Amino acid sequence: MIIQVKQDITEVQKERLIKEINQIGYKITEVITQKGTYLVGIGSAEFDIRKFGHHEGIQDIHIVSDAYKLVSRKWKVNPTSIDLGDGVYIKEGDMAVMAGPCSIESEEQIVKVIDHLKANNIKIMRGGVYKPRSSPYAFRGLGIEGLKLWHELASKAGIKIITEVMQVSQIEEMMDYVDVFQVGARNTQNFNLLDELGKVDKPVMIKRGISGTIEELLQSAEYVFSGGNEKLILCERGIRTYEKATRNTLDLNAVPVLKDKSHLPVVVDPSHGIGIRKFVHQMALAGVMAGADGIIYETHEIPEKAYSDGQQTLDFAQSSQLASQIRKTFAMRKTFDLL
Amino acid sequence: MIIQVKQDITEVQKERLIKEINQIGYKITEVITQKGTYLVGIGSAEFDIRKFGHHEGIQDIHIVSDAYKLVSRKWKVNPTSIDLGDGVYIKEGDMAVMAGPCSIESEEQIVKVIDHLKANNIKIMRGGVYKPRSSPYAFRGLGIEGLKLWHELASKAGIKIITEVMQVSQIEEMMDYVDVFQVGARNTQNFNLLDELGKVDKPVMIKRGISGTIEELLQSAEYVFSGGNEKLILCERGIRTYEKATRNTLDLNAVPVLKDKSHLPVVVDPSHGIGIRKFVHQMALAGVMAGADGIIYETHEIPEKAYSDGQQTLDFAQSSQLASQIRKTFAMRKTFDLL
Amino acid sequence: MIIQVKQDITEVQKERLIKEINQIGYKITEVITQKGTYLVGIGSAEFDIRKFGHHEGIQDIHIVSDAYKLVSRKWKVNPTSIDLGDGVYIKEGDMAVMAGPCSIESEEQIVKVIDHLKANNIKIMRGGVYKPRSSPYAFRGLGIEGLKLWHELASKAGIKIITEVMQVSQIEEMMDYVDVFQVGARNTQNFNLLDELGKVDKPVMIKRGISGTIEELLQSAEYVFSGGNEKLILCERGIRTYEKATRNTLDLNAVPVLKDKSHLPVVVDPSHGIGIRKFVHQMALAGVMAGADGIIYETHEIPEKAYSDGQQTLDFAQSSQLASQIRKTFAMRKTFDLL
Amino acid sequence: MIIQVKQDITEVQKERLIKEINQIGYKITEVITQKGTYLVGIGSAEFDIRKFGHHEGIQDIHIVSDAYKLVSRKWKVNPTSIDLGDGVYIKEGDMAVMAGPCSIESEEQIVKVIDHLKANNIKIMRGGVYKPRSSPYAFRGLGIEGLKLWHELASKAGIKIITEVMQVSQIEEMMDYVDVFQVGARNTQNFNLLDELGKVDKPVMIKRGISGTIEELLQSAEYVFSGGNEKLILCERGIRTYEKATRNTLDLNAVPVLKDKSHLPVVVDPSHGIGIRKFVHQMALAGVMAGADGIIYETHEIPEKAYSDGQQTLDFAQSSQLASQIRKTFAMRKTFDLL
Repeated sequence: MIIQVKQDITEVQKERLIKEINQIGYKITEVITQKGTYLVGIGSAEFDIRKFGHHEGIQDIHIVSDAYKLVSRKWKVNPTSIDLGDGVYIKEGDMAVMAGPCSIESEEQIVKVIDHLKANNIKIMRGGVYKPRSSPYAFRGLGIEGLKLWHELASKAGIKIITEVMQVSQIEEMMDYVDVFQVGARNTQNFNLLDELGKVDKPVMIKRGISGTIEELLQSAEYVFSGGNEKLILCERGIRTYEKATRNTLDLNAVPVLKDKSHLPVVVDPSHGIGIRKFVHQMALAGVMAGADGIIYETHEIPEKAYSDGQQTLDFAQSSQLASQIRKTFAMRKTFDLL
Repeated sequence: MIIQVKQDITEVQKERLIKEINQIGYKITEVITQKGTYLVGIGSAEFDIRKFGHHEGIQDIHIVSDAYKLVSRKWKVNPTSIDLGDGVYIKEGDMAVMAGPCSIESEEQIVKVIDHLKANNIKIMRGGVYKPRSSPYAFRGLGIEGLKLWHELASKAGIKIITEVMQVSQIEEMMDYVDVFQVGARNTQNFNLLDELGKVDKPVMIKRGISGTIEELLQSAEYVFSGGNEKLILCERGIRTYEKATRNTLDLNAVPVLKDKSHLPVVVDPSHGIGIRKFVHQMALAGVMAGADGIIYETHEIPEKAYSDGQQTLDFAQSSQLASQIRKTFAMRKTFDLL
Repeated sequence: MIIQVKQDITEVQKERLIKEINQIGYKITEVITQKGTYLVGIGSAEFDIRKFGHHEGIQDIHIVSDAYKLVSRKWKVNPTSIDLGDGVYIKEGDMAVMAGPCSIESEEQIVKVIDHLKANNIKIMRGGVYKPRSSPYAFRGLGIEGLKLWHELASKAGIKIITEVMQVSQIEEMMDYVDVFQVGARNTQNFNLLDELGKVDKPVMIKRGISGTIEELLQSAEYVFSGGNEKLILCERGIRTYEKATRNTLDLNAVPVLKDKSHLPVVVDPSHGIGIRKFVHQMALAGVMAGADGIIYETHEIPEKAYSDGQQTLDFAQSSQLASQIRKTFAMRKTFDLL
Repeated sequence: MIIQVKQDITEVQKERLIKEINQIGYKITEVITQKGTYLVGIGSAEFDIRKFGHHEGIQDIHIVSDAYKLVSRKWKVNPTSIDLGDGVYIKEGDMAVMAGPCSIESEEQIVKVIDHLKANNIKIMRGGVYKPRSSPYAFRGLGIEGLKLWHELASKAGIKIITEVMQVSQIEEMMDYVDVFQVGARNTQNFNLLDELGKVDKPVMIKRGISGTIEELLQSAEYVFSGGNEKLILCERGIRTYEKATRNTLDLNAVPVLKDKSHLPVVVDPSHGIGIRKFVHQMALAGVMAGADGIIYETHEIPEKAYSDGQQTLDFAQSSQLASQIRKTFAMRKTFDLL
């Protein structure tokens, strides 16, 4: 059960309401976000929604039987729009193109990528300064200093930054230098991290777990939302299967399913999804047709020299062509009037 | 190693050639198909291709190190075109739309589907007369009598038939009434069936196994080709993973990979690939953008009343819209000059 | 619903019974096996079992809601015992050790294996004469002549034969030379083969599909049983997962689950289950503790020279040690009074 | 390359050595643990080990080509023994039984479990005070206060504590109250957490990721070891597959493989591995036969009333029987002289 309360509800009204709901065996979690206040009720008894609907201070009341509640489209039909400022959005009805290197490497590299993005009207740059690596001996990123440099260069150019946060202690130091926090596939169920990201007023994109289910992705988003942060984006980036001809199995089925179940925007990452440079193009366009609201991919001036993920990174010529074709494909999709 | 021999090679020349190849430790399988004669050499020793190239009677010689040989694009760069007659093709550069019910049910049903296909300029009808069912108590199809009736009605209408063959003994009786034999996902590694289909002169579409790898699909095609039948089509229909929100996980990554590795046309089945009616549309169009040469999907006048697979079957209005959008998407993809 | 009818039921009684059951919306399949006659009712309406129980000619009536019926332990509590003659059984409460090479190769090889088995009191020999191979260019087995030779040598030595049948046409020619037909992992859902094996009076061991579920294995057994053959054995041989450090993932969980759901004996194949010689031993013993009624493994005089699967095949010294330890482990398990 | 240096190596000697190794293109990470100092060299050039072996200050030098180095058995043949004090060990050649509830719930519950453990000579108690839950609305554990209470009661009784740590900030506060830190399956690749656990002198048991590979588990252990903490234990707890008849697929194959690849002790968790109470018993004993050095399982006075995981939790009578049978099975395994 989700009860959206009015801005001007009094404490007394709220307490009376909660008490009454508790009486039917429902436990209430109060959620205060940037946009509203919600009482989320967890329980299993059946009840008549009209029993509570007449209470003062209630704006709306919904029954949501899914394990995830606040991220469900069942109570919030209008899609969530993520506003990054300066007219940059990630939202349904729009196509957000996000591109950049796997790792942020140097000032020169950042400048070259920014120039490429500007030339192609790409407004959001991806890149890692904290890199999760399966081996402790691998390059782990430039860290906060790299991020500050990147932010300085990007903000001058009017480019927004999306980058991965790996642990709670990084949130505060990164806060002023990122436009979107990314939660990586190995941290989709790092619940402490999700809890803390619920407390900040900054968009968060959550990647699907390495072998995460669609439902688990939605529940991870629920963690952040119930912590107080509604500014959420979901990302399909491929799952682990028995097939080894590709790095991951890009599960584009997840796109229409997520769009149907949730009001949050959905982004596709074809670079990790297939992991082979020459096929990223097809999978990006397939992602658009599957219903994605954004595409995030890897590009680098000289992919062969990238510190990481070179095998799946596009060069700038390929990236220019892809960005253009993503937009054309999206324009056609809009005429089809699909979800 | 693949040696394509000339039409007029003499037996003496061929024997001399085989003997010499045997001497470097390669075992030769002679393959005679509708289109040519090939000597496939299996071995591991390295050798100088020029050593054999000068022999009389040789048209071409290629080193193919993949486990699959004759279906590889490494020796045959030109894509294979499947000609069903009357100007109907399944081939690269074209978009074959194939639609029809899961099961063939009755004359009335067949007639209605045919009318729908004709109205939408769809030339190939799918449908099952032998149904593989996990339970022995489920409907198993109308059998050969249903196929004969279907063939009579379809051929009058100029519609081609693709339908599943489940066992060796059915091949002969079905032979005159099908345009494309389909090998189902549970029979992808039914090697006896593949051997026998190698002996007929009729196109065969092989579906990827329920949890088959891309390489296994190519090796299954190799079985049919090496048996003597080059007229092959590959089909991605979703694989089995841990994700249960959808019936299967449609692995569109497989499309560009298969197109890259093989000269055979590749078809996508979004109906089985996602298994949920309202999302078939998006996955079909995603399949087109991923590079498919054809789309095969399920349609029925009243999906709710279909004998099987109703939950993933489009009604005729949805099918008409989809067929049109598949073609528009394909037309756009062609302008992108992708694989 | 399963109705076991009495031997002396009259046709009139049976027809009356069937008619009455049809009236509540259940479809009846009559199954006649070596051991009895059953009416299997498929439907979804709830009904009072007493409504039919009073009919003449009925021995027993059970409600079985699983998709599989006749192989369920819900109606047949007593475990099925497979009697191979000469005091050789595969059954609960006993430990059947089955060993032999992957492929039958030559008279010399057969003789050596038989001598090894006799020396270790192993009564059942495994081996392949028809080999399913993913590549058409690989060794496919000695065929029926190899089987005849093997049978001659084995029957003299009092050794029983279990071997794979790959297609319907092989059943009749193999019939007189095998003691147990094996259905391989690629044929678990070859429903035509299962149908035909339902018509013969010879034990059938069905291996779990390469990525088959436990329920699918039971349904495949249901095919054979409902075809008329109750003499069935189930085999866990590892499933396909993302883990590539081992050939397959031996799913020993399946053993207690299958034993709980079905009255059929369950065998474990550790050789295919892990695929690495030095670890077969541990997995065989683990299989015993998981509750297996039999262990089937690969052994060869010189594994390195085996035509196939050498990497997972034990030499005779290893095999002798394993057979002894399997029995000791089983003897201890019996004292534990587990399922 | 792993170079174990002598205790009395001088800084000058060490610098000279590192410089020389750098010259062949290897990057050196210096690792100082409770037990020794190691230089781990990462590079790909081939070199003659004798080139460095003569240097002063070197105790041993090994080439380890695996991605994981310090946890490999290739350089350290002797198994790692984890000493918890008071004669309690987790080590090869021994069988550590660890039992307790999923969640720590109350003083009364703790006391009852401790009494049960003492009565059965079980020395290590498991239990969660921080619970990773996929839903934000579920019970998340008693936290640090619960741990303190538990520690007070357990230490009086001579019982050791193993419990999950979920994030970096918990390490310090938990430090004095745990005997073994557990890293849960959702945190196996939480690299920041692993880094920090490398800095403490306390044993750490790492569970295999929900769909983690065997190699990833070893690399996660490498993180902790290379951070300075050698006191490591690996735990197989089931992986995610397509099979839904059981909670997870317990991959017992992993046990002999891990024992072969690494010198670290390996523990099996049958409770999460199968997730069904009545089958935990068989899987525990199968784990012993597969080669486990310890078994960790869930028990509760009244499983039906447990706050979490009740469906897979044994009652005390079942637990007593299991502990005894684990020991008997292990005693028999020892006579078999397996790995």
